[in-house]
Amino acid sequence: MTAAEAVKTLDGWYCLHDMRTVDWTSWKMASREDRDEAIQEFKQLLTDWEEVEQAENGSHVLYQVLGHKADMMFMILRPSLNELTDVETAFNKSKLAEFLQPVYSYVSVVEMSQYSGNASADDPKVRDRLYPILPKWEHMCFYPMDKRREGEENWYSLSFKERAGLLYEHSKTGRQYSGNVKQIITGSFGFDDWEWGVTLFAHDALQLKKLVYEMRFDEVSAKYGEFGTFFVGNHLAKDGLDTYLHV
Amino acid sequence: MTAAEAVKTLDGWYCLHDMRTVDWTSWKMASREDRDEAIQEFKQLLTDWEEVEQAENGSHVLYQVLGHKADMMFMILRPSLNELTDVETAFNKSKLAEFLQPVYSYVSVVEMSQYSGNASADDPKVRDRLYPILPKWEHMCFYPMDKRREGEENWYSLSFKERAGLLYEHSKTGRQYSGNVKQIITGSFGFDDWEWGVTLFAHDALQLKKLVYEMRFDEVSAKYGEFGTFFVGNHLAKDGLDTYLHV
Amino acid sequence: MTAAEAVKTLDGWYCLHDMRTVDWTSWKMASREDRDEAIQEFKQLLTDWEEVEQAENGSHVLYQVLGHKADMMFMILRPSLNELTDVETAFNKSKLAEFLQPVYSYVSVVEMSQYSGNASADDPKVRDRLYPILPKWEHMCFYPMDKRREGEENWYSLSFKERAGLLYEHSKTGRQYSGNVKQIITGSFGFDDWEWGVTLFAHDALQLKKLVYEMRFDEVSAKYGEFGTFFVGNHLAKDGLDTYLHV
Amino acid sequence: MTAAEAVKTLDGWYCLHDMRTVDWTSWKMASREDRDEAIQEFKQLLTDWEEVEQAENGSHVLYQVLGHKADMMFMILRPSLNELTDVETAFNKSKLAEFLQPVYSYVSVVEMSQYSGNASADDPKVRDRLYPILPKWEHMCFYPMDKRREGEENWYSLSFKERAGLLYEHSKTGRQYSGNVKQIITGSFGFDDWEWGVTLFAHDALQLKKLVYEMRFDEVSAKYGEFGTFFVGNHLAKDGLDTYLHV
Amino acid sequence: MTAAEAVKTLDGWYCLHDMRTVDWTSWKMASREDRDEAIQEFKQLLTDWEEVEQAENGSHVLYQVLGHKADMMFMILRPSLNELTDVETAFNKSKLAEFLQPVYSYVSVVEMSQYSGNASADDPKVRDRLYPILPKWEHMCFYPMDKRREGEENWYSLSFKERAGLLYEHSKTGRQYSGNVKQIITGSFGFDDWEWGVTLFAHDALQLKKLVYEMRFDEVSAKYGEFGTFFVGNHLAKDGLDTYLHV
Repeated sequence: MTAAEAVKTLDGWYCLHDMRTVDWTSWKMASREDRDEAIQEFKQLLTDWEEVEQAENGSHVLYQVLGHKADMMFMILRPSLNELTDVETAFNKSKLAEFLQPVYSYVSVVEMSQYSGNASADDPKVRDRLYPILPKWEHMCFYPMDKRREGEENWYSLSFKERAGLLYEHSKTGRQYSGNVKQIITGSFGFDDWEWGVTLFAHDALQLKKLVYEMRFDEVSAKYGEFGTFFVGNHLAKDGLDTYLHV
Repeated sequence: MTAAEAVKTLDGWYCLHDMRTVDWTSWKMASREDRDEAIQEFKQLLTDWEEVEQAENGSHVLYQVLGHKADMMFMILRPSLNELTDVETAFNKSKLAEFLQPVYSYVSVVEMSQYSGNASADDPKVRDRLYPILPKWEHMCFYPMDKRREGEENWYSLSFKERAGLLYEHSKTGRQYSGNVKQIITGSFGFDDWEWGVTLFAHDALQLKKLVYEMRFDEVSAKYGEFGTFFVGNHLAKDGLDTYLHV
Repeated sequence: MTAAEAVKTLDGWYCLHDMRTVDWTSWKMASREDRDEAIQEFKQLLTDWEEVEQAENGSHVLYQVLGHKADMMFMILRPSLNELTDVETAFNKSKLAEFLQPVYSYVSVVEMSQYSGNASADDPKVRDRLYPILPKWEHMCFYPMDKRREGEENWYSLSFKERAGLLYEHSKTGRQYSGNVKQIITGSFGFDDWEWGVTLFAHDALQLKKLVYEMRFDEVSAKYGEFGTFFVGNHLAKDGLDTYLHV
Repeated sequence: MTAAEAVKTLDGWYCLHDMRTVDWTSWKMASREDRDEAIQEFKQLLTDWEEVEQAENGSHVLYQVLGHKADMMFMILRPSLNELTDVETAFNKSKLAEFLQPVYSYVSVVEMSQYSGNASADDPKVRDRLYPILPKWEHMCFYPMDKRREGEENWYSLSFKERAGLLYEHSKTGRQYSGNVKQIITGSFGFDDWEWGVTLFAHDALQLKKLVYEMRFDEVSAKYGEFGTFFVGNHLAKDGLDTYLHV
Repeated sequence: MTAAEAVKTLDGWYCLHDMRTVDWTSWKMASREDRDEAIQEFKQLLTDWEEVEQAENGSHVLYQVLGHKADMMFMILRPSLNELTDVETAFNKSKLAEFLQPVYSYVSVVEMSQYSGNASADDPKVRDRLYPILPKWEHMCFYPMDKRREGEENWYSLSFKERAGLLYEHSKTGRQYSGNVKQIITGSFGFDDWEWGVTLFAHDALQLKKLVYEMRFDEVSAKYGEFGTFFVGNHLAKDGLDTYLHV
């Protein structure tokens, strides 16, 4: 038996999702001066990152997460794993990070699979997908996923054509939400515990639910999708930080 | 193969289940003044929430949970994810929250699936289900669940008609408990780790057990139900807080 | 397809299993006075519970657990979920509880399933099973369990007669241990994460192992039993507490 | 269908595996006097245990574990569950235990299954296996295991003869390592989360790997073996303690 | 039925992967003198290890890990389990280790399976593979794995020839990355929870993703591979430590 033919991918910026919980008790116990200093230093970091974004050398967003799993969710894009690590290390050394427990993260790279024709990394549309300036829409949802490999339901034993067909059907569901939901797929083979990360942005949170629900009925999800933990939240802009962190 | 037809849903208020354990040792170590202040501030929060409920802009309940998994369980409904986040953040910043460890939570939205006919969001009965004022019955039980997707037992590969038939049978079991158990289904695709949350209210706790047990024999549960962790507890009214928190 | 017929159950007292680890380092750091006070207060709680037991309004036992999972295991029976919660809350507020970390618990209700004939809750023998005064035998073992629901091995798709037959065979294995092992089954649908809790008492610990091992070969266990974590320990009487807690 | 015939077992001493991590930071922060006192007290405990071993009323070994899962691994044998609990409690109350976090443990009883003929508990060779003085060989490995119960691969549905045949083949693999690896099987039905504990001793650590690897191809392991977590380490003699704990 | 024939292996140096998170808050709270002392002592340890490497008595590398799972990842090779333990213990006792929480580790031995012909441990090429001086390439990825044993997909029930054929196909995929990715396989039967550890080195991180992704389609991975958690990072040289640990 011959191995199923792997698909080529185009790969863009490296990506870190970084989820933190706020230790509100410690934060309240800190002096007002320490809190102010922590916020100012963090805003400066965000300003530095904005300059990177304006220079189109990366992008980032920050969301406020609901529920006990996390309070803040960063998504950060950079051209290399080293630059991404530098961003994470600088943040870890910051004063605000003393009050933020890391609870989850995901390491991946923006990815376009080449099932339908051969996209070129020189094509401006392709470049926009591989090196995206992240939308600052009101809501964001993140979850990691695998393709199933069990008995008759083994994605990696399907032919290229079968996989392409299933994904084409899937993309039609997605396209019905175009304008309402923006999706970024990042690949994490060799980088993290699941195979892909899915990041969805929406103005209306309900569109996130409707999209994920409807897609669950697509054969590719129904038979081959395995899903990890979900994080959902609201956009947290730099000028919303003072209010959010006020105690 | 065509994807199974997804069902339309009507969606109402956003919902947060929030479970906490009390750190009794720290609570006892706090001064009487600090404890009193924490209780008063929390009662004020509850009073604010009651005003929201009276204005029919949301609803909430608080239950005392048995066992080591949690001590307190909130269920809070609001018109938007942002308002829900604001409620959670305000509570997290409160003094009482310093003594309450978040141990579990669930993010979802009140949902009515449209398997049997087309309900209208304008119908007052439908509105009562989508925007419910939560009952303050003596007992409450919460658990999240998935529909199975494994080999021959794949809910998402069944036809609309097959699913509607299984759910209709299931609803007949539920209807035998009408008056004894009130059930609220919330959907969490894209919001949390399981697909639905089930919240049950009863005057007599035994009715919760009997309902869940009997339903397990319904084909839809026996073959397609996957269940998460269960929380059960007793109603904790605002005027029971002083007694509960007295040390 | 019709749903399999559920079996009726008779339900007795509500039940809490509560496992704790002793924080020996903190216990040793406490003053002798604080330790004495904690022990006296706890003994008074036990005395109160003994009065409940003598009035046949509940029952309780305390065992010392082996291994890292826990050090102490309570099993407490009460007529209502509210009374059970009150017992737990009172214990949580006690001084000794400051040195005991809650590590596991199980919420259920004493249950008799009605597979063989119709027992009556008025029958004194039935009452003794539903409202049992717990034995203070030398050893106790607790574990939660589910009945499997996977493909061909689905307990909840079997007919009433098939289930009754399998359980009858199972009961014959159990009866060989009568006098050596006392078994209490508690149901936890809607109350906790597994479907049933099994509590076994024995004078000779080896009888626990032999019973559980032999039963594993019964078809009902071999094909349909799913087992959770096991706790085993030795009876800890009130007058053994001073020795146990002496440091 | 008749239940598969269970096998009789001979059962010897009760067994506790107890794994701990050293809190080196706290240990270094303790005064030299406290550290010396802790070591002397622990050595006295070991001396007491050696006397038990010399009187053939039990046995014990201590190994230094590699990796983050643990630093020290005890294996302790005693004639009763109560004596075993007393050993554990005395150790937990010791000064050294303040610096050792319990991270894993396993409760079981030394077991000989009676698949091949009827061994007699009076036979000196059998007694040596049921009440073993543990070897102090250079390396030790421990892991718990289950026999699988899934669909066609259900150990507990096989006939006595089938199981005896599979185990006989398995024993031939083991016998090739006789002299190089000493194996002790302990049963844990009703006592702990897995069904058996396997403890292997070797002079050369590579023999542990080769034995476990080769046995994985035996049908009984390939089709019916489910394995838990593995611990491996080097013998830590009483006179090696000062060096090990020197900071 | 005869057991499948096990393959012979050649085994080289023992291997410890050791992952740690930096407690940045404590590190910042330490005095500059303490931090300097901790760094100097750690550099001296690294210098000692370099001498071992120069004498070809072992090897080691240190990588900076992305994400919340860890911050630093060591891979250390030594001729015996005892020497490996000594390295780990010395590091655990060091000052820097007070600020590094152990979060994961893996114990194994460098392994060459003998599917294709009989390699000789005297062959210099074989020696280089069994006793490798680890590359200090820019990126490293580590993950543990098992071969599946489920129903029809049971690696340990395949014949030697079938396994050799599947691995030969697999090696062809790997060979396309020769020069770009260096792979070291370590075996962990009897030593750790998974069966093998895979360590990959690359100059370009994307090559790690492409290799792992492409291999997933090889039948041996698609049908028989089960994968654990993934760690990925950037090389951290001794002279990069001051910058990395500067706060």
